[in-house]
Amino acid sequence: MREITTDNLPDLARGAAVLGTGGGGDPFVGRLLAQQAIKQHGPVTLLDVDEIDDDAVVIPTAFMGAPTVMLEKLPSGDEILHALRAVEELIGRKATHTVSIEAGGLNSMSPFVAAADAGIPLIDADGMGRAFPELQMLLPTLGGIKASPMALADERGNAVTLRTDGNAWAERLARAVTVEMGCSAAVSLYVLSGRQVKDHLVPGTLTLCERVGRSIREAREGHTDPVAAAAGVLGGRQVFTGKVTDVQRTTSGGFARGTAVLAGLTEDSGSTMELSFQNENLVATRDGAVVVSVPDLICVLDTDSGEPVTTETLRYGLRVSVLGVPCDPRWRTPEGLALAGPGYFGYEHPYEPLPHAEVS
Amino acid sequence: MREITTDNLPDLARGAAVLGTGGGGDPFVGRLLAQQAIKQHGPVTLLDVDEIDDDAVVIPTAFMGAPTVMLEKLPSGDEILHALRAVEELIGRKATHTVSIEAGGLNSMSPFVAAADAGIPLIDADGMGRAFPELQMLLPTLGGIKASPMALADERGNAVTLRTDGNAWAERLARAVTVEMGCSAAVSLYVLSGRQVKDHLVPGTLTLCERVGRSIREAREGHTDPVAAAAGVLGGRQVFTGKVTDVQRTTSGGFARGTAVLAGLTEDSGSTMELSFQNENLVATRDGAVVVSVPDLICVLDTDSGEPVTTETLRYGLRVSVLGVPCDPRWRTPEGLALAGPGYFGYEHPYEPLPHAEVS
Repeated sequence: MREITTDNLPDLARGAAVLGTGGGGDPFVGRLLAQQAIKQHGPVTLLDVDEIDDDAVVIPTAFMGAPTVMLEKLPSGDEILHALRAVEELIGRKATHTVSIEAGGLNSMSPFVAAADAGIPLIDADGMGRAFPELQMLLPTLGGIKASPMALADERGNAVTLRTDGNAWAERLARAVTVEMGCSAAVSLYVLSGRQVKDHLVPGTLTLCERVGRSIREAREGHTDPVAAAAGVLGGRQVFTGKVTDVQRTTSGGFARGTAVLAGLTEDSGSTMELSFQNENLVATRDGAVVVSVPDLICVLDTDSGEPVTTETLRYGLRVSVLGVPCDPRWRTPEGLALAGPGYFGYEHPYEPLPHAEVS
Repeated sequence: MREITTDNLPDLARGAAVLGTGGGGDPFVGRLLAQQAIKQHGPVTLLDVDEIDDDAVVIPTAFMGAPTVMLEKLPSGDEILHALRAVEELIGRKATHTVSIEAGGLNSMSPFVAAADAGIPLIDADGMGRAFPELQMLLPTLGGIKASPMALADERGNAVTLRTDGNAWAERLARAVTVEMGCSAAVSLYVLSGRQVKDHLVPGTLTLCERVGRSIREAREGHTDPVAAAAGVLGGRQVFTGKVTDVQRTTSGGFARGTAVLAGLTEDSGSTMELSFQNENLVATRDGAVVVSVPDLICVLDTDSGEPVTTETLRYGLRVSVLGVPCDPRWRTPEGLALAGPGYFGYEHPYEPLPHAEVS
């Protein structure tokens, strides 16, 4: 157990955006929202998963939508608590704790808003160990846990609740509502018991985010390589360094979809990497061959500063380094791959697990 | 107060489809659903508006979506009670009565399913005196009554609830959910007190539907003109008789939209009528000049049999007669016209109220 103050937020948001693999929302927006909530209500208590009772009532929150839109249409912050309260009303119980469902610049930070506003502790964990674009892509889905009862809320005060026949229907209906709400909405879903948090979530994600964010900052301050520092903390490896020469991006069906082309620099000179994304980076190919693929993590960092680059901030001329990071082993099972492997996203390549590098 | 048995349903459904002005759902589907519910639970008690207490809790139900789809994707019937129960849960009170929000082959019949399944009386009234394509187009909207709390349910068991910032947002969000549910859904909305029913609904609509349906049947049986019989009961007038020569129809945005062209027969020979519709018939022009326009009713009947022709059953070669029927006077106020007049639907012509014909 520890207290998170506004001092922790910059490292946390930076590292969360690295684990967000291009998605999970903007770290600047996320940090501002969390900062505002902590300034208003005081520090947030962060608990390890083994510090909670098995019968705890854990209600997660997140933002859903196209990250391209969220940069323009800023959340008010109030919609997060509205969504949480709507789920409490549906289940007839109050949340004793909250937790993040995915790592990401916004979606690791918005749970601090929920915790601060509701006055409840936050659990140091998340539902994926990364970010994924669709809401059924959560480790609890593999454990048979239902996304609904679920709520969505927008900044105008509109609130929608769902009880669905399976998590894929929750995604379909919630996506349609999100698009109509202007392509972004606060959501609350996947009500979990304390036992289910221990069995199905990835423990320690927020602390890992903070360590990644800190390692980048300290490397930069110490004039060492921030990308290598992040790779060391994550047990990942640098798979490419290059300059962005093309970005194709559309916002369709409630997602930001597209590709980015990188021309290799230094030891990668003469090679080309192409990144395909749907909110998150899905596949990285080098000269046409797949190098890293979902469910493994593809993290894009600014080569000089080590700052994470989200898919909506990728732009021509940026010099970036691409990290491949092994995913949680549960994503590598047949069930995990069916839920979020290359085939689900329409790719034909088989999944080749990225080997673990040494963790520094 | 009277009891409605399955014997009343054929006339009721036929007349309801006439008042549905081409929309409001298919009378055959509506009759089957009501028949099944009454066979299972017994007759439904129909009350006049002045027979209910001012503090009655009245929860309406209906089907929302594109009628073209509802003919293919038949409702299971269970979704109506699911939607009603979801609203009861939201407001924390049980319905004492139910009522129809619009006249129509399906939407005047599905309230019988709600009444039979829930074991509550049905009020002889509706929210428009006709059918309109969007859910905010209800006389209670003019009285400041909110569509939400609202629920949608589909035949798979998915349920969605809405609390929205105004009735236009209820339409937007509910339409998006309906489209995702496969373009049709059962809805429950516009919770009303008994007092509000008396102040804002159109009284006697179901009895009027039954009279219209009976007059058509009796005229047919007596070898007199069924179209003239319906016009007499409704205080409307026949504005055209012709043969359908062209139908353009698309299902888009959760609506069936299109136009139909009629070539005049007998006294209308040499003239052409064009009907424009969005689920319901909106505008009828004769040789380019507007003859009847929303909010007045444009009812299309088979010339020989007098059977109502919905916009989704309009087809080449059909011989039809078009009735113009004056709408409820509240639709003719500036507020009523802003909500459902020609301008709202994108037409530039001014609204010319159709004169009342003598009621037989």
